[in-house]
Amino acid sequence: MKKPKVVVLGAGYGGIMTTIHLQKQLGVNEAEITLINKNDYHYETTWLHEVSAGTLHHDRARVSVTDLINKNKVTFMKNTVTDINIEQKKVILKNNQEIEYDYLVIALGYESETFGIKGLKEHAFSISNINTARQIREHLDYTFATYNNLEERPEGMMTIIVGGAGFTGIEFVAEIANRVPKLCKEFDIPRDTVRIICVEAAPTALPGFDPQLIEYAVTQLERKGVEFKIGTMIKECTPEGIIVSKDDQTEEIKSQTVVWAAGVRGSHIIEKTGIENNRCRVKVGPDLRAPGAEGVFIVGDCSLVINDETDKPYPPTAQVAMQQGPVAAKNITTLIKGGTDLQTFKPDLKGTVCSLGHDDAIGVVFGRKLFGTSASAMKKVVDNRALFLEGGPGLLLKKGKFNFF
Amino acid sequence: MKKPKVVVLGAGYGGIMTTIHLQKQLGVNEAEITLINKNDYHYETTWLHEVSAGTLHHDRARVSVTDLINKNKVTFMKNTVTDINIEQKKVILKNNQEIEYDYLVIALGYESETFGIKGLKEHAFSISNINTARQIREHLDYTFATYNNLEERPEGMMTIIVGGAGFTGIEFVAEIANRVPKLCKEFDIPRDTVRIICVEAAPTALPGFDPQLIEYAVTQLERKGVEFKIGTMIKECTPEGIIVSKDDQTEEIKSQTVVWAAGVRGSHIIEKTGIENNRCRVKVGPDLRAPGAEGVFIVGDCSLVINDETDKPYPPTAQVAMQQGPVAAKNITTLIKGGTDLQTFKPDLKGTVCSLGHDDAIGVVFGRKLFGTSASAMKKVVDNRALFLEGGPGLLLKKGKFNFF
Repeated sequence: MKKPKVVVLGAGYGGIMTTIHLQKQLGVNEAEITLINKNDYHYETTWLHEVSAGTLHHDRARVSVTDLINKNKVTFMKNTVTDINIEQKKVILKNNQEIEYDYLVIALGYESETFGIKGLKEHAFSISNINTARQIREHLDYTFATYNNLEERPEGMMTIIVGGAGFTGIEFVAEIANRVPKLCKEFDIPRDTVRIICVEAAPTALPGFDPQLIEYAVTQLERKGVEFKIGTMIKECTPEGIIVSKDDQTEEIKSQTVVWAAGVRGSHIIEKTGIENNRCRVKVGPDLRAPGAEGVFIVGDCSLVINDETDKPYPPTAQVAMQQGPVAAKNITTLIKGGTDLQTFKPDLKGTVCSLGHDDAIGVVFGRKLFGTSASAMKKVVDNRALFLEGGPGLLLKKGKFNFF
Repeated sequence: MKKPKVVVLGAGYGGIMTTIHLQKQLGVNEAEITLINKNDYHYETTWLHEVSAGTLHHDRARVSVTDLINKNKVTFMKNTVTDINIEQKKVILKNNQEIEYDYLVIALGYESETFGIKGLKEHAFSISNINTARQIREHLDYTFATYNNLEERPEGMMTIIVGGAGFTGIEFVAEIANRVPKLCKEFDIPRDTVRIICVEAAPTALPGFDPQLIEYAVTQLERKGVEFKIGTMIKECTPEGIIVSKDDQTEEIKSQTVVWAAGVRGSHIIEKTGIENNRCRVKVGPDLRAPGAEGVFIVGDCSLVINDETDKPYPPTAQVAMQQGPVAAKNITTLIKGGTDLQTFKPDLKGTVCSLGHDDAIGVVFGRKLFGTSASAMKKVVDNRALFLEGGPGLLLKKGKFNFF
């Protein structure tokens, strides 16, 4: 009898958790498991704001895929997915190689969403992956290193603009606020030559957060020199900076460093599959299957799960992706073993912690508001828990964050 | 009685050695000593190739001026010299401040000499000081960090061109050859995408060196992937690369990283003084006094001393500058104390060692040819000796190079 082929696309939080659970539940004679990923490493997406700011080395935020999986049970392919043929149950890779599947897990993660704002794609950086994150870090270093070599400096050379004061924007701008004084010292530049501006279109920073926590976060960041422009839309990004508008007033802010951290969407591959989607996110069934695509499960940022209590989708977070993985794996195992009783995915959200640098944070955990060092310690617990789930105690010891105080 | 004013311009090898010896020989009641330098630090110019390549942090290559001088005896001013009025015995600083002198020591060091080659000034980097050196390092890092973010890469993006295979060019290209494999690993780039090209107009690398040593150096560097283009003139540098010619054949080499390491001249301030000079270097008298400028001594790269044996000028080296300092100081002391019997400067050259990375070198020391680890160890002895002369055992322990093997 032919062994069913299970193919997992992506080794992010969702893909790696699915794979780990699949390899536990299925024997080598029961299925052929293949994991396909663009890079030969998995990275901690939720740590990329630190890599981007240069406060954490990128090697601390990534680990070899083959260190996480059981190579006797899972075949790992380093390749890029270019298309999926749902009809023919085939994945098409960059070298035109085709991989057949009986069960497919799409875990291709997120891409930056620029909402059609002119010039953002061309002139702004984005915190999307290890490559873009370390490019931001090196761009900052290079800009600071160049400063003292110029007689005449372009306006806004030392202005860092962060687009978005949501979760990622705030976490990133907080790291930047901690890093800038160190960069100034390193490159002999007075601190007051550098501006850090955070622009947010919504009427508040951190929309959706508790107002008391928001106030704490904004005050702490302003104390470190961050300027907030709230209720302010970015209209355009140019090589010289950004054009913003607020209350019908338009203003240009010159900057050579614009980092867009305000929107994500699912992978563009989703659009190619023809599966119904909204900004490349697919409203999956309760068992995480994609509608109208036989044998296809979707987890992580390409999936969209509605919160019954609020009737709104859960935000695409690592927490959700990591909880979806085991459910997808369990359901595929059930189907392979001839079962029909599939598990329903229901996120068990323990809370959210937004870091404000290595020593500060805000959050709500088990319904309790936290800020300052206790929130910061909790953030590290969250980060370490993810490592433990992905790679057990070995990975935790190797990459864990133990600088609690 | 008015105390004579001694002003030293520049805290490089020559200036710092002059100042240290002045403060030893003159009591606080005998003279007012002022040291003026653009930065509040002294740096090891002969280590800048390492800073530029990123193999040594710039803080390892510099030290606070006030850590080297006796602040009770010497007034240190951080300022930039914009002109010298020889007639009125005045130094003019950036803020239009004027400093009068009775004795002046010009030790303003070197600048990059581009011999009028079109575009070099605008588009090439130069290893001139801490600022330009760390800019080269950060430019390299940024280029490597950008590579994996581009779908289409400009031709020559990963081509590093070093203009000049003289002493500095070879020392720099050797560090680059050591650094590139590390950069490739750091940024996940295959080593074979990077080219390192060293272009030299003379018919040989390291003109003036022993042929056997040159062959050793070139072979070692070629083994590490350096391509040499000898007898090849750089005609022009553009934003896209360089245009070279050899035997009437013109060729364009695309590159985003051109480092010019082929020529130096004295400080442009020399030209402004009206003192007779050649490429901003002044042929000083045997006592290091400048012709036709009362009370003015010149040491280091702005001075030109003829070697009587060869009838050619000594090359502008740290070794010569460091030996001139004590002579200038001694002669000024003699004049202040009413003497007339001035010392004659005669360099006592112990040899030359050209580094080929941290673990390899070539050189001639006390007339003996050295290469490999023995030359490399000798190079570190030379570097450490300079530190010892500048700052005693304290500085040697703090910044010394002790990684002998």
